[in-house]
Amino acid sequence: MTTELAPSAIGVFDSGVGGLTVLASLIKNFKHDNFIYVGDTARVPYGNKSASTIKKYSQQIMEFLVSQKVKCIVVACNSASSQITEKEFQGVPVLTVIEPGAAEAVRATQSGRIGVLGTKATVNSGAYANAIKRINSQFEVFQQACPLFVPLVEEGWVDDPVTNLIVFRYLQPILQHNLDTLVLGCTHYPLLKSAIQKVAGSSVTLIESGDAVSSQLRQDITYNKIQAALELNQQQVKLYATDLDASFASMAHKILTTQKFSLEPLQLSL
Amino acid sequence: MTTELAPSAIGVFDSGVGGLTVLASLIKNFKHDNFIYVGDTARVPYGNKSASTIKKYSQQIMEFLVSQKVKCIVVACNSASSQITEKEFQGVPVLTVIEPGAAEAVRATQSGRIGVLGTKATVNSGAYANAIKRINSQFEVFQQACPLFVPLVEEGWVDDPVTNLIVFRYLQPILQHNLDTLVLGCTHYPLLKSAIQKVAGSSVTLIESGDAVSSQLRQDITYNKIQAALELNQQQVKLYATDLDASFASMAHKILTTQKFSLEPLQLSL
Repeated sequence: MTTELAPSAIGVFDSGVGGLTVLASLIKNFKHDNFIYVGDTARVPYGNKSASTIKKYSQQIMEFLVSQKVKCIVVACNSASSQITEKEFQGVPVLTVIEPGAAEAVRATQSGRIGVLGTKATVNSGAYANAIKRINSQFEVFQQACPLFVPLVEEGWVDDPVTNLIVFRYLQPILQHNLDTLVLGCTHYPLLKSAIQKVAGSSVTLIESGDAVSSQLRQDITYNKIQAALELNQQQVKLYATDLDASFASMAHKILTTQKFSLEPLQLSL
Repeated sequence: MTTELAPSAIGVFDSGVGGLTVLASLIKNFKHDNFIYVGDTARVPYGNKSASTIKKYSQQIMEFLVSQKVKCIVVACNSASSQITEKEFQGVPVLTVIEPGAAEAVRATQSGRIGVLGTKATVNSGAYANAIKRINSQFEVFQQACPLFVPLVEEGWVDDPVTNLIVFRYLQPILQHNLDTLVLGCTHYPLLKSAIQKVAGSSVTLIESGDAVSSQLRQDITYNKIQAALELNQQQVKLYATDLDASFASMAHKILTTQKFSLEPLQLSL
């Protein structure tokens, strides 16, 4: 094995800091794997942008990750995932958060009534509803776009009466459908988990992208679709941001709950 | 006079739809001028991004406007304005919203205690405080970043109890300084004017970028720094968006209160 980080790394990307919740789960579940993460903070957020713009930005980042010789790419952004249907990019396997999240929701539900919270882009794509119905066409899916959740998280108002009020406003209409399972269809939303759980009630199971995609990746490694890490490898984590400032670093420390990563700016050809 | 729009047009740009409040004021005040507006909706918002990224994006758009042979450029975005100190770009006069807004605040205040609301980028730049103190160094300036205002406007929650609560939260600390004048230092904020006025009280004068930059442009035309329009010209308004969707069109109709404009996507070299 070479001493370079790249050859065996798992590539992960998001529009900004939200995907770090997915990275945190992957780091915990794949202790001998190296990671390269790209946060496209210069163009964040993706969730309000058009399908074609989101796709263009995602491809640019995947090209960078392929150039870093990653063994697979995890699209840790629901808005980007909802636009990517390809199973590989330039020969490298691609995992989005949609299908793993849909599969976990289907496993969790008993009533077959599933809610999906997401950005406008994710909700408009109908990606979760389609993925759930491909597994079981009898299941009912109720979607709600929550455009203020991402800015609330970025403002740090995660445990706040204002946030509770906004969560209530967005959830009230879909909770009337008697859901028992709710997909947190944006990687920022786990940071609002306690506010969402409070409004939804304890009988509703919340599905997080990070856990879901970790299960999928474990399966792909077991079935040799993706190479396993060497057990002797000391995990290395390299973060890139297209617009690197202090708040990115502080969110990274907060979400990853570790100091052990490197942080560099990344210039995409704008 | 040629039939082309470009040669005598005033170029206006913003990170998205917010600058349309400035354009609305300019359209009303300069009835014989043509306008070319660029909303950089593919990379909106600018307010949370770094100074160098904002400057790079702004220059790219100004290059496009210069290629369209505009007679001047109005930077209808406070975050971009706070990073642009040049008075011209490739020989074309540039007006930002900062100095006109600062000048109008100085004219309006009686106590010399002025508040500034803006994005993180605008507040961190200190641009308004510097511009006000250049006019009168005795004046006191109190700034407050309001990162949730832009997403609230984009969500359309402009007359809403949740918005009133958030306005109160942001304004409460600076209102304790007994201000008599408050600069709405982001072109989205005029859409929250009534909520802000309610919290600030009727004794506080609100300063809007659109009116301020219209006064400055009138003066520059009077002093022949910028060419006047031909009085026979029938006003033409051309809007470009880097990510054009239905919501841009609907906001344009709402803010400009007219149907008389053309709308086209603009591809910047990303």
